Amino acid sequence: MTRTIYILNGPNLNLLGAREPEIYGTQTLEDIREMCAARADALGFAIAFHQTNNEGELVSLVQEASEQAAGLILNAAAYTHSSIALHDALKSCTIPAIEVHLSNIFTREDFRHHSYVSPAVTGMICGLGGQGYLLALEALATWRKA
Amino acid sequence: MTRTIYILNGPNLNLLGAREPEIYGTQTLEDIREMCAARADALGFAIAFHQTNNEGELVSLVQEASEQAAGLILNAAAYTHSSIALHDALKSCTIPAIEVHLSNIFTREDFRHHSYVSPAVTGMICGLGGQGYLLALEALATWRKA
Amino acid sequence: MTRTIYILNGPNLNLLGAREPEIYGTQTLEDIREMCAARADALGFAIAFHQTNNEGELVSLVQEASEQAAGLILNAAAYTHSSIALHDALKSCTIPAIEVHLSNIFTREDFRHHSYVSPAVTGMICGLGGQGYLLALEALATWRKA
Amino acid sequence: MTRTIYILNGPNLNLLGAREPEIYGTQTLEDIREMCAARADALGFAIAFHQTNNEGELVSLVQEASEQAAGLILNAAAYTHSSIALHDALKSCTIPAIEVHLSNIFTREDFRHHSYVSPAVTGMICGLGGQGYLLALEALATWRKA
Amino acid sequence: MTRTIYILNGPNLNLLGAREPEIYGTQTLEDIREMCAARADALGFAIAFHQTNNEGELVSLVQEASEQAAGLILNAAAYTHSSIALHDALKSCTIPAIEVHLSNIFTREDFRHHSYVSPAVTGMICGLGGQGYLLALEALATWRKA
Amino acid sequence: MTRTIYILNGPNLNLLGAREPEIYGTQTLEDIREMCAARADALGFAIAFHQTNNEGELVSLVQEASEQAAGLILNAAAYTHSSIALHDALKSCTIPAIEVHLSNIFTREDFRHHSYVSPAVTGMICGLGGQGYLLALEALATWRKA
Amino acid sequence: MTRTIYILNGPNLNLLGAREPEIYGTQTLEDIREMCAARADALGFAIAFHQTNNEGELVSLVQEASEQAAGLILNAAAYTHSSIALHDALKSCTIPAIEVHLSNIFTREDFRHHSYVSPAVTGMICGLGGQGYLLALEALATWRKA
Amino acid sequence: MTRTIYILNGPNLNLLGAREPEIYGTQTLEDIREMCAARADALGFAIAFHQTNNEGELVSLVQEASEQAAGLILNAAAYTHSSIALHDALKSCTIPAIEVHLSNIFTREDFRHHSYVSPAVTGMICGLGGQGYLLALEALATWRKA
Amino acid sequence: MTRTIYILNGPNLNLLGAREPEIYGTQTLEDIREMCAARADALGFAIAFHQTNNEGELVSLVQEASEQAAGLILNAAAYTHSSIALHDALKSCTIPAIEVHLSNIFTREDFRHHSYVSPAVTGMICGLGGQGYLLALEALATWRKA
Amino acid sequence: MTRTIYILNGPNLNLLGAREPEIYGTQTLEDIREMCAARADALGFAIAFHQTNNEGELVSLVQEASEQAAGLILNAAAYTHSSIALHDALKSCTIPAIEVHLSNIFTREDFRHHSYVSPAVTGMICGLGGQGYLLALEALATWRKA
Amino acid sequence: MTRTIYILNGPNLNLLGAREPEIYGTQTLEDIREMCAARADALGFAIAFHQTNNEGELVSLVQEASEQAAGLILNAAAYTHSSIALHDALKSCTIPAIEVHLSNIFTREDFRHHSYVSPAVTGMICGLGGQGYLLALEALATWRKA
Amino acid sequence: MTRTIYILNGPNLNLLGAREPEIYGTQTLEDIREMCAARADALGFAIAFHQTNNEGELVSLVQEASEQAAGLILNAAAYTHSSIALHDALKSCTIPAIEVHLSNIFTREDFRHHSYVSPAVTGMICGLGGQGYLLALEALATWRKA
Repeated sequence: MTRTIYILNGPNLNLLGAREPEIYGTQTLEDIREMCAARADALGFAIAFHQTNNEGELVSLVQEASEQAAGLILNAAAYTHSSIALHDALKSCTIPAIEVHLSNIFTREDFRHHSYVSPAVTGMICGLGGQGYLLALEALATWRKA
Repeated sequence: MTRTIYILNGPNLNLLGAREPEIYGTQTLEDIREMCAARADALGFAIAFHQTNNEGELVSLVQEASEQAAGLILNAAAYTHSSIALHDALKSCTIPAIEVHLSNIFTREDFRHHSYVSPAVTGMICGLGGQGYLLALEALATWRKA
Repeated sequence: MTRTIYILNGPNLNLLGAREPEIYGTQTLEDIREMCAARADALGFAIAFHQTNNEGELVSLVQEASEQAAGLILNAAAYTHSSIALHDALKSCTIPAIEVHLSNIFTREDFRHHSYVSPAVTGMICGLGGQGYLLALEALATWRKA
Repeated sequence: MTRTIYILNGPNLNLLGAREPEIYGTQTLEDIREMCAARADALGFAIAFHQTNNEGELVSLVQEASEQAAGLILNAAAYTHSSIALHDALKSCTIPAIEVHLSNIFTREDFRHHSYVSPAVTGMICGLGGQGYLLALEALATWRKA
Repeated sequence: MTRTIYILNGPNLNLLGAREPEIYGTQTLEDIREMCAARADALGFAIAFHQTNNEGELVSLVQEASEQAAGLILNAAAYTHSSIALHDALKSCTIPAIEVHLSNIFTREDFRHHSYVSPAVTGMICGLGGQGYLLALEALATWRKA
Repeated sequence: MTRTIYILNGPNLNLLGAREPEIYGTQTLEDIREMCAARADALGFAIAFHQTNNEGELVSLVQEASEQAAGLILNAAAYTHSSIALHDALKSCTIPAIEVHLSNIFTREDFRHHSYVSPAVTGMICGLGGQGYLLALEALATWRKA
Repeated sequence: MTRTIYILNGPNLNLLGAREPEIYGTQTLEDIREMCAARADALGFAIAFHQTNNEGELVSLVQEASEQAAGLILNAAAYTHSSIALHDALKSCTIPAIEVHLSNIFTREDFRHHSYVSPAVTGMICGLGGQGYLLALEALATWRKA
Repeated sequence: MTRTIYILNGPNLNLLGAREPEIYGTQTLEDIREMCAARADALGFAIAFHQTNNEGELVSLVQEASEQAAGLILNAAAYTHSSIALHDALKSCTIPAIEVHLSNIFTREDFRHHSYVSPAVTGMICGLGGQGYLLALEALATWRKA
Repeated sequence: MTRTIYILNGPNLNLLGAREPEIYGTQTLEDIREMCAARADALGFAIAFHQTNNEGELVSLVQEASEQAAGLILNAAAYTHSSIALHDALKSCTIPAIEVHLSNIFTREDFRHHSYVSPAVTGMICGLGGQGYLLALEALATWRKA
Repeated sequence: MTRTIYILNGPNLNLLGAREPEIYGTQTLEDIREMCAARADALGFAIAFHQTNNEGELVSLVQEASEQAAGLILNAAAYTHSSIALHDALKSCTIPAIEVHLSNIFTREDFRHHSYVSPAVTGMICGLGGQGYLLALEALATWRKA
Repeated sequence: MTRTIYILNGPNLNLLGAREPEIYGTQTLEDIREMCAARADALGFAIAFHQTNNEGELVSLVQEASEQAAGLILNAAAYTHSSIALHDALKSCTIPAIEVHLSNIFTREDFRHHSYVSPAVTGMICGLGGQGYLLALEALATWRKA
Repeated sequence: MTRTIYILNGPNLNLLGAREPEIYGTQTLEDIREMCAARADALGFAIAFHQTNNEGELVSLVQEASEQAAGLILNAAAYTHSSIALHDALKSCTIPAIEVHLSNIFTREDFRHHSYVSPAVTGMICGLGGQGYLLALEALATWRKA
């Protein structure tokens, strides 16, 4: 049985740490990958960690996760608010999926208050920084055992 | 004179048959390709049949069709509702183009009721499943003869 | 078993050929009736072909079709966009029904972009002129055989 | 002095019992007519009971009721939500009028949440099935005595 | 050459004089017909004067006027605000047409501020009571001579 | 088996008779309580009759009714239009519930046209003054017998 | 008793004849002034005819008319759609006032469909070119006699 | 230094386990309290756990938490979507606060998609059932240590 | 004759001085009470000064003021923007009432720009800090004498 | 140091006392000027009192006040709701400014509920008639001393 | 042939350098006039440079430019967003016209995102400070030569 | 120090010259590249000129420009109106960036009136054809010197 959790990151998250630190903090995406790998290991999982600026690739990775993984963590960044294609990919996804945002999207611009991802996933965690990824890992781990 | 009809399929249509069968039925995209090839053959055409999850690729394929093909059938799936780039590509397309949807998009979520594709094509067929592609082929064939 | 298909036409379609030919073409409604009769005959069906300017009569004809016919083709013209009564009649209709429009309603005024008919029928064909009726006949014929 | 109450029923209510029974129940319109006649009789009234699919006829019947009747019960069905003509007829109506709906229109589609009838009548009863007509008869009877 | 002007009146205008006199005044529709006949006569025209509560009939009368008349005066009353069918009939009408309202519709309910008739006619006169019909006759007479 | 019907009244209804009599009439809430008690008695029920200005208390009373009563009549007054908490309490309520308003809320300010109560109850009666409560009692009594 | 009618013209009407003739025709404002003077003379009135590009001046002229004139004709042009100050001036105006537009404003841009002038005047005439001014003069003359 | 975390629950959460189990599951609020107490104990905290149907009380409890507690977990239920008072209380709250919802509010009615709580808290966790409370406790515990 | 003025303060105003001082300043509610008592005394009035976080209590206090007081000053804070119950209480209030806000609500979030209180009171003073209460006292005092 | 307060009055306020007295009362603008001069004198200030129907002049007067005055009272009347130019002038104004309205603008037409002035001034007083100007003077006087 | 370019500046631009320097910079309007005169001279043009706070005057200046000038540069400031009169003047303007804004209007308040000027000019330059005027001069000069 | 300016072109701009020449002119993208290279050379810069139909690639190129270039010119074509990902990339971009459009987007369809690019760049130039690129180059060159 697969013991891998896919962690997918959308556009501009490769800039993390550099880009608008007053909103996103100084942690880099590599820092987050390492934290996630360590926690996943402790929970008995491997992770597949990806970042892409491309909507279509993100769609394909969600499809791949649905085939290959035990769970999905998705921080779709800007595509959260514009991608119906991602919504459709998640709707056909048969594994538990959790949406994560580093910042509290509800304190930001109006166009970030609507998510096409939220109605197609199990749950959402936002505003808790890199720790949000770890909480999502724990949630998925608990799910598996239940 | 070119005798090819381009049939372009957007994001997540590669999952057809597996994904949400209560909405899209159990036919796979390969089934549809075969049906289309047979019908096109009967009508004296070849087909170029593509699927991609990538908006930019879909735009490029529409441009290519405009150069290479006698007609275009487009099921843009989720990009139907969000892609102005696709709208622009179709606007500059000089061959007849027909929009097809497998399901009746007007019985689904509100965000599927608006199409950026519709105002840039000749006509639209929706809700008739895989048969919609065949009807579109016939419409394009008739067009050519007229 | 009934072998008749009802083809119902809404307000002002009696003017077809005369009215705004740059939008609707020069075909008359009688031309369309003849084309439909011939094609239906080839497919093994009879047709009952009606036009009325009256919303209530159109509602009654849809009710009658539901009792008498094997399938329904409806071009409700202006009532498409305003008639909830028609929507309700179609909702209680137990035969397959296809909405047809001669022009591509999505390239026209905003108030023609919403249809009360669409969410209450099987599918929709628009923008393909009189040929749209013929494609609808074929779709219904295929339905019957399936 | 007139002792008749007009009970007017709008489009598709002739299908009652057959149409969408999960929403409207299995009672037919004839069943309701009989219940109303019996209750009216007990209250010392006659009834004039009509159904039409035609908006204009419904308008004319409201005008007739205003001339002939002691009270009006109106289930305008789909025209409830679209008919300003009906609104105007009711506004010039000089007898007490009660709007009735079999189903609870507020649990249904958004376009059924607005009524052009409500602001032009005395009161409204909805969601109580055929019994709503009987309660309306009692309300009108009480009115007469007061 | 035809010397007749059609004057068409929509729903509830048969009640004029009785209905809401604080809005519509005490003139009856017959009074207006007589005034119009006299003025038309002075201008060298005959009139065809109709009232109907039925949208479909009004559509048919506009079609008839387009065939038979030199000009059209239309007070569509409530259908002004809801009838796309009337809009379409007027759009295909090849004679000059003037919209008339007795009251100033812009001082009334919001739903009376939008007209489907206005964008499909030559001009509009409102708020001037029965005199509006006479001014419309003069406008049409001048048109003919020009 | 419980034979009690809860009749709950929201904010400012304690002022009934004094407050804006041109809208609500001169009947006091005590008058209504007495009318209800008499009618309930005739129908074989007891009543529990409450008024509160407090949204939270109204929520608790609905919860209590669901446990204790055979039926619920609710005139939530201003909370009708703003209380999602009340909506949720009614959604989890397992007894038949009827919404009552003394005035016709659809002839009043726009903010009174939307009700959070309506989609969570069986039916609604409005515009019939204190008699609306009595009709609701009869409706609930009939329900019990059916 | 004053026998003068004020005819006020708003911004850019000084360009009439030159500006966008496909919308406004080739008549100049001076042509219209002359036509109006002649017709007013025939009706037993003098006219005071003004044009200004300045909203405040237009407000002051309406105030002056209310003091000095027997009637007011106002073509506020662009200020029709934006000037609440003009609305207020007209509201306090104690003489009959008629709004005139040369073109049919309802066939033009959306922002020309709303008028702050309309709800503050007696009536409106639009789409009838320069003749609209003459009809307004006749309407005011009739008013005086009545 | 205070080692208590306030866990506040809004209207109707006292019904948990009974109310709409297809949305909220079969866990009772007491079950959740116990889970939270155990986890908090493991993390070195005490909890103060409250439920109220009253908006004003919830506001007072948030004020109290700001004085007494090291962190706040708030499931405001229906008040999430309507309470500006709660928003203001949270804005003046000087301790970290996390919003929790048992269900995924974005898959439910439109009126549950907007939260007055979200823009006034640190972060939000939804759709993960009772486990959401435990993840929030961990997040707050980590916060304290950082 | 009563010489008392009620001064009612809504949710979170008990935190004044502590809460968001950059918006509300450093004055406490007790400071304001004292200033008001002194000014009222000078004007020949007593004051009844209350604060509550509870909407229902605020409604009851408005009802009490209507019975007991010569005038009402109301700073409803967050309930200003959400409480129709408060609106109704004020509508039935028979004494002069003035709405006060410490901050200029029109420079803040959009949801603070609409007030249910404003259309139900005599006047409003905002943006002038604690002094707004004193000006309201003077306005009410003047009222009494006039 | 300047001891002058500018009091600026917008369009149609010159008609005060005559215009719509049921809304604005019978006080003339001259009455208000006199009241203001007396009160200002008592407070140790002079006033500069202006009225204009012209938006541009009002803008220039606000600019002048910013240079010359110790404070500004502005009743922009209709320009309140439409003038972004006034908003900009106030934004660059470096003296305290108070918006005044004689009537309670929130009980009037919807288009009077939004103010471009409010977000650019210190505070606002409305609904208190001519007394509002006096309270504004006192507020400005207090400001100077603080 | 005319070699003059009109440069028109709207309300409050006379304050440039003083007003909100964090948005508009410290350059004065005189600085900009000098820069423009120098650059125009180099390009072989003269300039006519005006500033006014008055909408009507701005309209008249645009009309004058259309008669007198080879090109027009317009920074309408606040009137950009509210003046349909300016839109109409520009529509009838027969010379090339370029809209300029010092600041990036799309990073500011929502009401500055819509321009009535933009759809009536050749092009727009914004966000480039005083240099925007110089670029507009170059664009107009190139135009002349082409 | 880098002396390169990135010039990025979005979807369908590869068709320039062929596609809808009545909107975009007959210049090809290669023509524009050459013009830009020549002008940049004169200004002492090199250019990196790219076109892509792919949103994700455009995002990556903006990130690259931020690392490699002295300035950025972006004609995002259709992605202007739909890409939040591009908005985010520009927000984290640390070099001056100018948005360019060949056509005046404000004279076109409504969906082209909103730009996600504009609020994230320094300035915008539109409607000036290929010359817009050259003006943007000059603006960036001036920037560097300042």
